[in-house]
Amino acid sequence: MLDHTAKGVYPIAPTPFDAEGRIDYASVDKMTDFYLECGSTGMTVLGVMGEAPKLDGAEALELATRFITRAKSVPVIVGVSAPGFAAMRTLARAAMDKGAAGVMIAPPNTLRTDDQIVTYYRQASEAIGEEIPFVIQDFPQTFSVVMTPNVIRRIVQDNAACVMLKHEDWPGLEKISTLRGFQADGSMKPISILCGNGGLFLDFEVERGADGAMTGYAFPDMLCDIVRLQAEGKRDEAHDLFDGHLPLLRYEQQQGPTGLAVRKYVMARRGIIASDAQRKPGAALSAKAKSEVEYLLSRVARHDPRAGKLG
Amino acid sequence: MLDHTAKGVYPIAPTPFDAEGRIDYASVDKMTDFYLECGSTGMTVLGVMGEAPKLDGAEALELATRFITRAKSVPVIVGVSAPGFAAMRTLARAAMDKGAAGVMIAPPNTLRTDDQIVTYYRQASEAIGEEIPFVIQDFPQTFSVVMTPNVIRRIVQDNAACVMLKHEDWPGLEKISTLRGFQADGSMKPISILCGNGGLFLDFEVERGADGAMTGYAFPDMLCDIVRLQAEGKRDEAHDLFDGHLPLLRYEQQQGPTGLAVRKYVMARRGIIASDAQRKPGAALSAKAKSEVEYLLSRVARHDPRAGKLG
Amino acid sequence: MLDHTAKGVYPIAPTPFDAEGRIDYASVDKMTDFYLECGSTGMTVLGVMGEAPKLDGAEALELATRFITRAKSVPVIVGVSAPGFAAMRTLARAAMDKGAAGVMIAPPNTLRTDDQIVTYYRQASEAIGEEIPFVIQDFPQTFSVVMTPNVIRRIVQDNAACVMLKHEDWPGLEKISTLRGFQADGSMKPISILCGNGGLFLDFEVERGADGAMTGYAFPDMLCDIVRLQAEGKRDEAHDLFDGHLPLLRYEQQQGPTGLAVRKYVMARRGIIASDAQRKPGAALSAKAKSEVEYLLSRVARHDPRAGKLG
Amino acid sequence: MLDHTAKGVYPIAPTPFDAEGRIDYASVDKMTDFYLECGSTGMTVLGVMGEAPKLDGAEALELATRFITRAKSVPVIVGVSAPGFAAMRTLARAAMDKGAAGVMIAPPNTLRTDDQIVTYYRQASEAIGEEIPFVIQDFPQTFSVVMTPNVIRRIVQDNAACVMLKHEDWPGLEKISTLRGFQADGSMKPISILCGNGGLFLDFEVERGADGAMTGYAFPDMLCDIVRLQAEGKRDEAHDLFDGHLPLLRYEQQQGPTGLAVRKYVMARRGIIASDAQRKPGAALSAKAKSEVEYLLSRVARHDPRAGKLG
Repeated sequence: MLDHTAKGVYPIAPTPFDAEGRIDYASVDKMTDFYLECGSTGMTVLGVMGEAPKLDGAEALELATRFITRAKSVPVIVGVSAPGFAAMRTLARAAMDKGAAGVMIAPPNTLRTDDQIVTYYRQASEAIGEEIPFVIQDFPQTFSVVMTPNVIRRIVQDNAACVMLKHEDWPGLEKISTLRGFQADGSMKPISILCGNGGLFLDFEVERGADGAMTGYAFPDMLCDIVRLQAEGKRDEAHDLFDGHLPLLRYEQQQGPTGLAVRKYVMARRGIIASDAQRKPGAALSAKAKSEVEYLLSRVARHDPRAGKLG
Repeated sequence: MLDHTAKGVYPIAPTPFDAEGRIDYASVDKMTDFYLECGSTGMTVLGVMGEAPKLDGAEALELATRFITRAKSVPVIVGVSAPGFAAMRTLARAAMDKGAAGVMIAPPNTLRTDDQIVTYYRQASEAIGEEIPFVIQDFPQTFSVVMTPNVIRRIVQDNAACVMLKHEDWPGLEKISTLRGFQADGSMKPISILCGNGGLFLDFEVERGADGAMTGYAFPDMLCDIVRLQAEGKRDEAHDLFDGHLPLLRYEQQQGPTGLAVRKYVMARRGIIASDAQRKPGAALSAKAKSEVEYLLSRVARHDPRAGKLG
Repeated sequence: MLDHTAKGVYPIAPTPFDAEGRIDYASVDKMTDFYLECGSTGMTVLGVMGEAPKLDGAEALELATRFITRAKSVPVIVGVSAPGFAAMRTLARAAMDKGAAGVMIAPPNTLRTDDQIVTYYRQASEAIGEEIPFVIQDFPQTFSVVMTPNVIRRIVQDNAACVMLKHEDWPGLEKISTLRGFQADGSMKPISILCGNGGLFLDFEVERGADGAMTGYAFPDMLCDIVRLQAEGKRDEAHDLFDGHLPLLRYEQQQGPTGLAVRKYVMARRGIIASDAQRKPGAALSAKAKSEVEYLLSRVARHDPRAGKLG
Repeated sequence: MLDHTAKGVYPIAPTPFDAEGRIDYASVDKMTDFYLECGSTGMTVLGVMGEAPKLDGAEALELATRFITRAKSVPVIVGVSAPGFAAMRTLARAAMDKGAAGVMIAPPNTLRTDDQIVTYYRQASEAIGEEIPFVIQDFPQTFSVVMTPNVIRRIVQDNAACVMLKHEDWPGLEKISTLRGFQADGSMKPISILCGNGGLFLDFEVERGADGAMTGYAFPDMLCDIVRLQAEGKRDEAHDLFDGHLPLLRYEQQQGPTGLAVRKYVMARRGIIASDAQRKPGAALSAKAKSEVEYLLSRVARHDPRAGKLG
């Protein structure tokens, strides 16, 4: 079961499809194995970038189960965001039955006031069952819901089951410092903070007190290295590696189907998944965009040989 | 099967719950019978006011089926709005299998540009199957999606299956005139236009060319009368009846759980459903609000004896 | 100077223009006189419906000054909402120098969190000068800023200069009760609450504890009657008069340029202003809409002879 | 006068303040000189990052005039976005009288439909005068207004005075390609495209056909180099330089007052302006953030000696 001591890298897993839009389970297995080999300490499935809304309920559960089974003892977090608590409860309980370690809940984009946000998480935890550990997803650029550090503290304090924050506010560095300050002054119980946003600020986020990353950059092995190097006190080395990847990482950090298309393209080029297909409605990279990605890969390869070993 | 000749009143059915939050199927039947006795020409279930997001997939289908079965030959439209096309398809196809006449689709509130809206409906129709008649729900105050008349025309022309508009833009009278003008000049195929927004402008909407109402005001019998009186050319009589109800109708037209609480309270008072309970998270009327509704009912009763015959 | 004891009716004054888009000062005077004859206890200029953004700085001040001068001892509130505090300060101080009683400040629609809203009003009061009484405008449908009762309390308690709430949340009756409860339990200092939203719920708002209306319905004389009748304990009489106007009042309550077009049309028909022209970019009523308004006026006239005495 | 042949780098100038919040005109002059020495081909003042809303009308004009005078023959674009056309017209005409080359207009964040956006720019151009060249600012993350390539084309074709696009959509590379395609197929007249977003994608934007940059990164000299190197066909060299700056550039690209605080801090460290003060309400960097910026500067200095020559 997920708890506040979680750290390291939890890749956000895309959903591999074949050209006809069917889930490619062989790639699911391969990708899961790859994550484990990388040193990932967990993984997250059915997130925003996992094309979850394109799966129906049965598919979503089957997919989550496949990840969980393959990942064995490594914790798998399942995204259960839904327009209503009934569907959220159904998926959350089924996923936990299958062995998920916890669930992730994004706020619906109609929430505005602090109280609405706090109440929403309270009701969600009640609805799914207060024994199920959950992760707050704080991603204002996509969800249009703005959570102050104080609101996050209220959610954490209100809900025993709230053990982690997926932090992807931007700018967000001071937020991490503030939240860690709340823990230090005893006003908030400890939580795990894993960072998203494609990893665009991961180099500094871990220095601010984040426990690691939860994001989908196509080189999770690099993300694991950053967390490890920083833990070992090798700051310059961490930044050197990070900076070598930043041009590509930045390119992948384009919201919506374009960013996902880049991510899947690179993962396919690395042989992690068989195809970069998105289920409809999706996006494909233009020839121009592909050549830009290839150029970036060749440049990253000068700093990180893994970017040169392509299929 | 629903087509563009639909007219009259399609009540938006609330979902009756008991005090424990279970669906009250006896009330579903009673309410359906009441709608038919009123002269309703159809009905719509699992809409915004039907607390649809609080039902899980199995419940939603079971509830829709109960309405369809009880309504016999009268067409039932099923709301299938969902965050993804997979879930939308699953519910739409299952509902049609059970005898639904068509489905209603609201736009996700992330849509902004004209092309995004038009593309969304094209993809939705493809996803559910182009043989399933569908209704556009145009409700900018709730969905934050603004459709110009031209966008509606593009959707109608792009999709053979688009047969109806649930019109609840506000202000919206000129929009109805414009759309009927498009039909008159041959640039748009005929569609049925049924109006929502609690009926707040129904008196004039039918004069502008709307085919009737699709809304949940607790006196659908009055809505049926308005449509009938206007069809018979009894304009003043229609307005007299409408104006007698307007103070209550306006009071019920409070968005979100408050408006629904008023609606269910009045329906329960009229004996149409057994209880005004909402499934959690819901809202209950304060004592003060109840006394206001009672006062309004007593005043409506001076114009319409049906408001005086309470349980 | 405006303070928390303000009550009665403060009409939101439209800006009269001639056909060429020039401010029609003769109509400004005539309208001001009319408001005073009605029994208005104050008035508000340069509000959302006053086409304020179409005036440049010099015009805005000249217009406000004309109202203030003509209104003599009756307090005039000046809308000073602006994208920045510098412009807000300039207009606020100039208007106060000319004799304004206070200013009204709407929140910019980028505010989301409770703290952002509270901080904004704190900074605004500091920027304009803490000796200038100000009014919070709480109008979520138009501004997309949602203020809980608690946020309003924080603003009131933080700012000695905050003396009034222009209440136009919807639904909003419970909000009034809650705020009056805060005063009763001593957690909030007393404020004046005047209600907007075209007056659509004024009949009950005053029963809930509001001090009156601040809105632009074209029959402010009727609004004054409602407040007076309710103060005299003549509840049924108040509702009878209100309900007689409700069909027109509801028609006028169409947001944006359409509602303003109806309002100016009726005011011109009543002889309060010379023309219903809006400065560009504006809206004009269609022939159909005009005939609907005329029909409504004729129907209101059956209950209120003032609606029959047209120019 | 600005026209569609504009290219190169137009820095977005911040407004230098002293510790008391007064405009620091000595720094304005110094900064202007610096921009010219860098090879800037123009500059833009009173933009989003120029704290324009904190200036009142007189200050804004005085500041713009100072830039224009100092910049001599180099074109200065003045941001004139305003909540209403009257204020926009006043500033635009006054700035042009003082020698501005053109104006920049951002869409108000209430616009939704394609027609609303197109109509807005048509009305704005009419309001300010059709002889004044204007720039469209396309910045959806900040303004919540989404313009498709087709909408931009409609604006360009509708308005002779529209000569430039400030492109800061994200993702945005395909948009540039599409717009250049419109020019190639003759369906859109030529426009200048300068890119914003802090320069985060400038390396590829110029390869896609953009004419350069209009953004405020604290090393405009580097931006000038990128544009020049790409024009000379030195692709790898351009990317090498860009990538060396990317860690800092990315750090500066934090929206709102934080990003501006970084920018002003670095400009002050470089001696371009005297102080990093923001006028209230503003933001200051935490000690931790300052140390991060210093670290980044030291790392950039390994690739670009200009980052090592600090005051």
